[in-house]
Amino acid sequence: MSLREGKPTYRFASCMNHLPVSFLDELFRISAVPGLISFAGGLPDASFFDLEGIKAAADRVFQEQGKNALQYTTTDGYLPLREEISKRYKRRLGLDINPDEIQIVNGSQQSLDLVAKILTNPGDTILIERPGYLGAIEAFSFYRPRFSGINPDKEGPDIEILKTRLFEDNPVFFYGIPNSQNPSGLTWSDKRRREVAEILSDTSCLFYEDDAFGELFFDGKPRQPVMRYNPEKTMLSGSFSKIIAPGLRTGWIRAPPEVLTAFNRAKQAADLHSNLFSQMILTEYIQTHDIDKNSRQMATEYEKRCKIMTDLVKDLLPDTIDHTRPVGGMFMMLTLPDSMHSMEVFHKGIKRGVAVMPGIPFYTDDGGCRTIRLNFSASSEEQIKTGMERLSKVFE
Amino acid sequence: MSLREGKPTYRFASCMNHLPVSFLDELFRISAVPGLISFAGGLPDASFFDLEGIKAAADRVFQEQGKNALQYTTTDGYLPLREEISKRYKRRLGLDINPDEIQIVNGSQQSLDLVAKILTNPGDTILIERPGYLGAIEAFSFYRPRFSGINPDKEGPDIEILKTRLFEDNPVFFYGIPNSQNPSGLTWSDKRRREVAEILSDTSCLFYEDDAFGELFFDGKPRQPVMRYNPEKTMLSGSFSKIIAPGLRTGWIRAPPEVLTAFNRAKQAADLHSNLFSQMILTEYIQTHDIDKNSRQMATEYEKRCKIMTDLVKDLLPDTIDHTRPVGGMFMMLTLPDSMHSMEVFHKGIKRGVAVMPGIPFYTDDGGCRTIRLNFSASSEEQIKTGMERLSKVFE
Repeated sequence: MSLREGKPTYRFASCMNHLPVSFLDELFRISAVPGLISFAGGLPDASFFDLEGIKAAADRVFQEQGKNALQYTTTDGYLPLREEISKRYKRRLGLDINPDEIQIVNGSQQSLDLVAKILTNPGDTILIERPGYLGAIEAFSFYRPRFSGINPDKEGPDIEILKTRLFEDNPVFFYGIPNSQNPSGLTWSDKRRREVAEILSDTSCLFYEDDAFGELFFDGKPRQPVMRYNPEKTMLSGSFSKIIAPGLRTGWIRAPPEVLTAFNRAKQAADLHSNLFSQMILTEYIQTHDIDKNSRQMATEYEKRCKIMTDLVKDLLPDTIDHTRPVGGMFMMLTLPDSMHSMEVFHKGIKRGVAVMPGIPFYTDDGGCRTIRLNFSASSEEQIKTGMERLSKVFE
Repeated sequence: MSLREGKPTYRFASCMNHLPVSFLDELFRISAVPGLISFAGGLPDASFFDLEGIKAAADRVFQEQGKNALQYTTTDGYLPLREEISKRYKRRLGLDINPDEIQIVNGSQQSLDLVAKILTNPGDTILIERPGYLGAIEAFSFYRPRFSGINPDKEGPDIEILKTRLFEDNPVFFYGIPNSQNPSGLTWSDKRRREVAEILSDTSCLFYEDDAFGELFFDGKPRQPVMRYNPEKTMLSGSFSKIIAPGLRTGWIRAPPEVLTAFNRAKQAADLHSNLFSQMILTEYIQTHDIDKNSRQMATEYEKRCKIMTDLVKDLLPDTIDHTRPVGGMFMMLTLPDSMHSMEVFHKGIKRGVAVMPGIPFYTDDGGCRTIRLNFSASSEEQIKTGMERLSKVFE
């Protein structure tokens, strides 16, 4: 039983030495500090979770197929749920997506991990919007890619930069969030979507279209995904986390058959299958409730909060601070004057009782010192007012 | 929106070209063929799932903390659940394991993926029992290791082979299932556990101890894990899949702090956190039910089925067929005479209406042609009798 003297040393895979600083878990912890108003996280407002409806759905699952719900199942996911997802694409967007083209995952985050896993060799280039979603940067980093950031203009990713990068870097995929991007809050124009789809046709680069916020447009109107214009070159991921409940950890990905086969294989190795009980609850819930109505109510409320926050940026913060104008989703971005650093705002904000998200983890280069992400979905109007007042003190 | 002519070609990561043939999903599908008796799968008997008790637990979670259960949470897992796991280690095995040493995962399979992810560079050696668990081989393969198989003797992995491999191959970890191994059904002696723990002290190789079956010993007596004898060099994984319900996809891993930190980082990137609703249901269920009693009843029933199957191997199959003598778990292994191939038995069995699991996917070399895995947990006594009669026809 001898334990040799001294502390053991552990050897880790090289990827562990190439990870960015992690902010995600820190954010969840900050959000639990009493009295702190947090614009730093990315939580949906739990008051919109339909507890009663979800409980009724769970009751029915227990009653009608309890033992099945608790047993192992196949990797691809519960077929009736994939059918509901397929029907919703048809109804909302007029898209013909067969249930067989869909794989269920544990929320969008798992798609990020598995797409990178099946497509990326160390040193391969991944294109990503600049700024890009930090959860994606985190997931992709484990596969040791070279990141190449694409700056946006008002319509979406700069098309000339994109062209140059596509042909110079031979990237394996381009990751983007065309609907209410996280962190910027920007939405791509339809024209830009078509242009991106068109350009990809000439390359062996896939587009990874992350659509977590497409059902939260303030005007209630859906936007066509890039996938519509080039399905063979696009993987499209979606999630119930923002519109029903994140705790159920259920999302999906639609991909071209050959890609989906590889993805399914990786999913099986990763955790066999997603939580079947949750998949059945969601299916039952979708079949018996108007979930579009709920997400419209949510979007209307988020719009109100976004407007209050935008107005307060203008009223309370220095004129030198610019902000994006979201048309949906949960986030907006501020650009600071050169005299201020985003980490300084973050630390001073915490002291004042308000948390903002510094831009740094959204950049794969040394960017983010002049940008801040604000979340407007998780705070009430009162909290937004108080929080913005506290934030204004930071700039005095 | 031009789609260029011809089928697009996709580029995949190199690991995709190095995966073994997959059997897992195929098995779940076979298990749905009507009339077929399957000894090929690895399902627990769903009649032991305590539907009523789990529903009552779910009701309470909805009632008392519904909104929290449906919201995002931290990566490490629901603290009260980790506390229950810690308490059970103390009560069952006298082990002091702090809840902080435990990370919740989506069933043991996710631990397999993430451990390999944080420890393995392409070309690194992973030691694994020969035969070894196919789900582990599958998960590890994505990280392109070199596998090195350790044959067992009656007490566990051959200690001389292990020593040689440890010093010649400098492996990153050794993966094994000391309790009722899948696929062999073998259980390591306590002496061997101590020897393995001792040997590892002199190396930088970690032991990955997969304990999915430790609560299903027929005699109801727990065995001390290797971890007890060398906690700094051992990662110990467990699961509720075999003793409560696999559909809830909840397992855990206990690892030394430095390793757990890396693991937690990988878990966050992989899917943020495991299903919180299921974690809360399990916590409530464990706090209000005697789950040890249920697993003892399960083990007693499995023992009966194992004995019937063992007797029928002797009575119905040729004398040239040898079998292991499990003292717990869900599997036994048959060794065929040189004149028969395991794939032949598999294909002929399907035609006769009985599915067995050929040994091939449990070997990382060209082994497995003379071995077959039989599952005895998922079939009733009657099904075992009928299935073994059908199997006997294959050998006529």
